[in-house]
Amino acid sequence: MTRYALTLEFDGTPFQGLQRQKHGPSVQQSVEQAALAATGQDITLFSAGRTDAGVHALAMRSHFDVASDLTPFRMMGALNAHLRPDPVAVTACEIVSDDWHARHSCIGRSYVYRIANRRAPLTLEKDRAWLVPQSLDHTAMHRAAQALVGKHDFTTFRSAHCQSRDPVKSLDLLAVERDGDHVLVHAAARSFLHHQVRSMVGCLALVGMGRWREERVKEALLARDRQELGLNAPPHGLYFVAAEYPDQDSQQERPQ
Amino acid sequence: MTRYALTLEFDGTPFQGLQRQKHGPSVQQSVEQAALAATGQDITLFSAGRTDAGVHALAMRSHFDVASDLTPFRMMGALNAHLRPDPVAVTACEIVSDDWHARHSCIGRSYVYRIANRRAPLTLEKDRAWLVPQSLDHTAMHRAAQALVGKHDFTTFRSAHCQSRDPVKSLDLLAVERDGDHVLVHAAARSFLHHQVRSMVGCLALVGMGRWREERVKEALLARDRQELGLNAPPHGLYFVAAEYPDQDSQQERPQ
Repeated sequence: MTRYALTLEFDGTPFQGLQRQKHGPSVQQSVEQAALAATGQDITLFSAGRTDAGVHALAMRSHFDVASDLTPFRMMGALNAHLRPDPVAVTACEIVSDDWHARHSCIGRSYVYRIANRRAPLTLEKDRAWLVPQSLDHTAMHRAAQALVGKHDFTTFRSAHCQSRDPVKSLDLLAVERDGDHVLVHAAARSFLHHQVRSMVGCLALVGMGRWREERVKEALLARDRQELGLNAPPHGLYFVAAEYPDQDSQQERPQ
Repeated sequence: MTRYALTLEFDGTPFQGLQRQKHGPSVQQSVEQAALAATGQDITLFSAGRTDAGVHALAMRSHFDVASDLTPFRMMGALNAHLRPDPVAVTACEIVSDDWHARHSCIGRSYVYRIANRRAPLTLEKDRAWLVPQSLDHTAMHRAAQALVGKHDFTTFRSAHCQSRDPVKSLDLLAVERDGDHVLVHAAARSFLHHQVRSMVGCLALVGMGRWREERVKEALLARDRQELGLNAPPHGLYFVAAEYPDQDSQQERPQ
């Protein structure tokens, strides 16, 4: 058996999420079907993170095992050919050792949340950003965000459906910047709770609108109570951007 | 009558083009119908440029006359409300004098052409960029492009359907830059011939792939023969980005 590690990019709009679902299409199902078509074998895809319906990925990391001697370059081409017309693409592929696991070996995950801060409806960015018409004070958002960085009990910012045993997580980065009429929120941690990024972004947006004092973000955190959550930002502004792993040897093939 | 000048953003994918067509939807038709719904009056929309099916706009400039005392801010809101769900948005609106004409007063037009230079199929950028899998030498493309800057007979780079009387145009800017795995081509002129930007980009891409010597772009220009065109780049990578006008007084309303 050969273990292929993939870097996946996908538009989350038509999917129920990354993970296979009983009802509705998933990214996992698309990739597993493409691998079946490419190799004639049933495979199981493991990924660094789960993403909700509508959430996108620029560089999700995943792996699967299969009896194949295809080079990474040819495996990438075969998967991409069979993934059409689903909006999922393999942007890089490598062969990794059996002790490398896309989820268990992952030591860091990062996301970006994209807010379109303007009055006009979205056209080219429909389903690609959260439209917030009220003018956002991104500097106030950034200041308020710093109360969440570090090791905390994130119960307030956790979905009722979260399956994590422990609500304590270490948030390494939560940074807010403006780029023209976009406000971007960057988040990085070893791991996140279900809905954590969207919940944090929702509360920061309330600060940006002036509906929450900056201090209220810290108060909501300390309350450790989901009822204190102000707003859960919608999924279509969220992008999984990177997964980090310990250094390793690998036979990697990246397009040009 | 009041003359309202609009700044329009649109996703060209579902349209037969900006200009009203007998067969199929157009941006003009969408805006005229929204204006009818908003004001109860039939209006005619005039725009700085024409765009083909699939071509996008970040900031097209247009105008129409209507008997209305709506402020620009309210007109923008009413048009946007009635434009849904079409992927067209009014991002700015102002009242202008009767001698301001979106097309005739325009003294400069600029475009950007977006190439995704990678092997993997497009997902989030599907219909938003031209996918070129061969590695492109963007510096060779930029050098070759300079032969086209200036006043020339652009017959080679002109559609057989072009209605312009004169194939001589002054090209002010044709610049190629790389941004990660994207190659961007910026073009600016007082006006362009039909398909001129796409035709120039197609030939530059051949240079970038190494299929054309750099000098061949100049040779194609001097031939003044459409048969010498190497490649017409597809419409979905092209964006109308700005229209320029002489300075003027206006009551402008821009969102935040």
